[in-house]
Amino acid sequence: MLLRDIAQLLKARLEGNDDLQVDRLVHPDRAETATDLALAMSGDAVPALARTKARAAVISADAPVPARAFDALLTVTEPRMTLAKLTALFDPGPVREAGVHPTAVVAADAELGEGVAIGPFAVVGPRTRIGARTVVLPHVTIGADAVIGADGLFHSGVRIGDRVTIGDRAIIHANAVIGSDGFSFAPEMNSPAAFAPGVILTRVHALGTVTIGDDVEIGACTTIDRSTLEDTRIGRGVKIDNHVHIGHNVVIGESSIVCGMAGISGSVTIGERVRLAGGVGIGDHLKIGDQAIVAAGSGVSGNVAPGAFVSGYPALPHERSVEHFYYLSRQKRLHRKVDEISARLEAVERSIKDDGG
Amino acid sequence: MLLRDIAQLLKARLEGNDDLQVDRLVHPDRAETATDLALAMSGDAVPALARTKARAAVISADAPVPARAFDALLTVTEPRMTLAKLTALFDPGPVREAGVHPTAVVAADAELGEGVAIGPFAVVGPRTRIGARTVVLPHVTIGADAVIGADGLFHSGVRIGDRVTIGDRAIIHANAVIGSDGFSFAPEMNSPAAFAPGVILTRVHALGTVTIGDDVEIGACTTIDRSTLEDTRIGRGVKIDNHVHIGHNVVIGESSIVCGMAGISGSVTIGERVRLAGGVGIGDHLKIGDQAIVAAGSGVSGNVAPGAFVSGYPALPHERSVEHFYYLSRQKRLHRKVDEISARLEAVERSIKDDGG
Amino acid sequence: MLLRDIAQLLKARLEGNDDLQVDRLVHPDRAETATDLALAMSGDAVPALARTKARAAVISADAPVPARAFDALLTVTEPRMTLAKLTALFDPGPVREAGVHPTAVVAADAELGEGVAIGPFAVVGPRTRIGARTVVLPHVTIGADAVIGADGLFHSGVRIGDRVTIGDRAIIHANAVIGSDGFSFAPEMNSPAAFAPGVILTRVHALGTVTIGDDVEIGACTTIDRSTLEDTRIGRGVKIDNHVHIGHNVVIGESSIVCGMAGISGSVTIGERVRLAGGVGIGDHLKIGDQAIVAAGSGVSGNVAPGAFVSGYPALPHERSVEHFYYLSRQKRLHRKVDEISARLEAVERSIKDDGG
Repeated sequence: MLLRDIAQLLKARLEGNDDLQVDRLVHPDRAETATDLALAMSGDAVPALARTKARAAVISADAPVPARAFDALLTVTEPRMTLAKLTALFDPGPVREAGVHPTAVVAADAELGEGVAIGPFAVVGPRTRIGARTVVLPHVTIGADAVIGADGLFHSGVRIGDRVTIGDRAIIHANAVIGSDGFSFAPEMNSPAAFAPGVILTRVHALGTVTIGDDVEIGACTTIDRSTLEDTRIGRGVKIDNHVHIGHNVVIGESSIVCGMAGISGSVTIGERVRLAGGVGIGDHLKIGDQAIVAAGSGVSGNVAPGAFVSGYPALPHERSVEHFYYLSRQKRLHRKVDEISARLEAVERSIKDDGG
Repeated sequence: MLLRDIAQLLKARLEGNDDLQVDRLVHPDRAETATDLALAMSGDAVPALARTKARAAVISADAPVPARAFDALLTVTEPRMTLAKLTALFDPGPVREAGVHPTAVVAADAELGEGVAIGPFAVVGPRTRIGARTVVLPHVTIGADAVIGADGLFHSGVRIGDRVTIGDRAIIHANAVIGSDGFSFAPEMNSPAAFAPGVILTRVHALGTVTIGDDVEIGACTTIDRSTLEDTRIGRGVKIDNHVHIGHNVVIGESSIVCGMAGISGSVTIGERVRLAGGVGIGDHLKIGDQAIVAAGSGVSGNVAPGAFVSGYPALPHERSVEHFYYLSRQKRLHRKVDEISARLEAVERSIKDDGG
Repeated sequence: MLLRDIAQLLKARLEGNDDLQVDRLVHPDRAETATDLALAMSGDAVPALARTKARAAVISADAPVPARAFDALLTVTEPRMTLAKLTALFDPGPVREAGVHPTAVVAADAELGEGVAIGPFAVVGPRTRIGARTVVLPHVTIGADAVIGADGLFHSGVRIGDRVTIGDRAIIHANAVIGSDGFSFAPEMNSPAAFAPGVILTRVHALGTVTIGDDVEIGACTTIDRSTLEDTRIGRGVKIDNHVHIGHNVVIGESSIVCGMAGISGSVTIGERVRLAGGVGIGDHLKIGDQAIVAAGSGVSGNVAPGAFVSGYPALPHERSVEHFYYLSRQKRLHRKVDEISARLEAVERSIKDDGG
């Protein structure tokens, strides 16, 4: 790639040789050849520029000018977006061949869009439709009557259940499961009948499905359950990390983010642009308002208002969690103070008694 | 299906046209055609009956009679069990063909019962026996010498290790792993020797297996480890949700329920009809008594008595957890009160001193 | 196997018939035939020796001499290491055939070392190299340009991404994912821009890879993410349990242990011989010093010093967590004491007032 084309894509200021060719994007410390482009967007990468073997570099307008000279220097004003654009540009993507691999088992009445790639041992069920240019890597199972959008990327071992709908540009990471059954029984799990000796719990079957909007990303080993009669719904632009558990009938609004190992119980409703940090747990049937933030490791046992920032177990408004912790850490001192007051009071009482005697 | 047959199955009271045909079970709001049967078992579904396009509905005897007329109305007394029975009746089940798919690799000496279905790319190891009518979906791996009961359903990507035994009517969801190795090393993990510089941790191999009773359900991406010499045992009727981690040598009693993302350390013994809510962690070698309940997100660090309800981190009897939280939330007030008492006491002390002077 | 050979391997004292043949290692209670070797290394197995059907047994030098006679008795001084050695000796290992299964899809330019076994439906990408005697079980996907060492064992459903490097003697359990993409977007997840209505989160691609040393074990359904430009690095001898989430750019030092369901956020640096117990969460960019211990269920929100033992949520030095809990459990009493002091003080104030009146 020519530096001048990259500069244009990034809307970057380019000093030096705009004719330079680069073929690899690297951390300054990992540059090896004259065609490596050193990227220094983060604080710790900047000092490495002084010693890099790269002859071209991308820096942030905020960062100090590197002490040493480069053949070419790109200066950008939006470092994070630059990172997204440049890494996309240099990502070779997964290795796959065009077309349907001869070992794949694709139902005769499945419909594959133009340019769809289906890898070895993938299985595509009856009447399922897959949009143009979507890449299905090896060992993926897609059930019957599923509808998958265009330009998607399904990594190895992903399982898509029957009747699931997924929008365009989905990225589903390895071994994720979309459309597993909800966890629901008769008698109800916590009803007295469910504790009776000899009880037999009978499965409530999940006839609903999972509906996923455009531009959604779902992490490795994440599971999304289908519901009894309604749909579990993941809005446009939602990003979900690894090992997340999304129960049946959950609704997640647009552009929300769910970090690793979060567990969302059945029938929870999550608004738009919500942040659930890592390891968060949310009790069933709760509502999390738009733009709310739940801090890492929190256990949410009540509704969360739009825009609220909650933390702790049980989760409280963050300033109250901090206050609880503050007082908790002063307990020892308080106990001592009370003991000392008690002793002084006793002295006073004694003195009054003596006085009165 | 004829409504009269459904009424008989549910032991429901049927008013109206008992000759009506239905072919789909839906939430009242999702009815589209005259052959949809609207199911209104939960509170929020009842008002939807007023506007549903369905001509037949199932309601609970407890619920108010719908304002509008239906061609046929089924009234039931056990709404939850009705939900289980009706969803089972209308569940089309996973798409699969009868018999062994030509791509499957089944050992010559594996024994398949009558009506067993083995999907594309499934692997069944030597001497393994699978009971009648069990369905094995694509990409399932079953090891050697396993014994699987009748009428089971194994979803895509399930891994069953060598020598594992599973009862009748098992439902194992996608990408679950039964019979992974326990996590055990020499020197012991927390012994001083394990911290010595240059230490090499040597694997303790897991020669035991996993034994699972009848009517057990296991969630997507759940793992159950095998033990060193003894068996990890899951009792009859146990229901396990997604992302659960069951360590080696664990024993779970009949009809217990383990919700999503619970982690059960090695050698834990869990009684019958126990409830572990979502995200619970249980330390190794602990005992959880029959019918005990552990609240969501709790970290159990001691034995739990039969019938106890514990919560918190560390888990305590629930009323003590509530008490801790109650007093924690009154800390600020207590600190102020102590300050005020201290000031009053000082005044008293001063007055006595003045008096005495 | 002859007992005398086993005695030599274990450096054990052998009394009785050293010519005895054994073919199975069992818990004393599970012995069935004359060729079973009863192993009694743990306290609860010792009493079972009195009733075992085995004719040969292995005991610890610390344990009491069994009450009944054996045809042969092996006495060892290192019970835990004996367990490791004996279970390795009797582990039949997974069932697999030599060579490449005819159904496997191995790239023409992949290089397989001597004695490599590739199971049914495994996929090995272009230019990937696999060291001698490594066993790849069914349904494993290995991407392009990966480098895998010798004597490894890759269980069913493991996914290894492009360019991942793994050392010798790796054991990777079923459905683990090595080299999934890091979870990284522009604008940054918690920046104000990321909350703007209509925001579109753009993926930061992960061009880095994952590098894993020798003698590493990785649990079932565990995921290890690749990083933007640098490598996620797992040191020699690290042991990782099931359901662990290791974010992008994480570094874990030699011989550290990560127990089940631990979640390690991006760019965390973990030292050597560290212990992370079950369910631990670690916030991003933190440093955990050598030989530190993090107790089960802890949420780490700050750096942990070498050798420290921390616990709790948020994690504190363990003695402080214990102190917090101690005072928390005495809150009720403290409140009562303060009430009582207040009442006494009032009496004193009244008496002084009366006195002065």
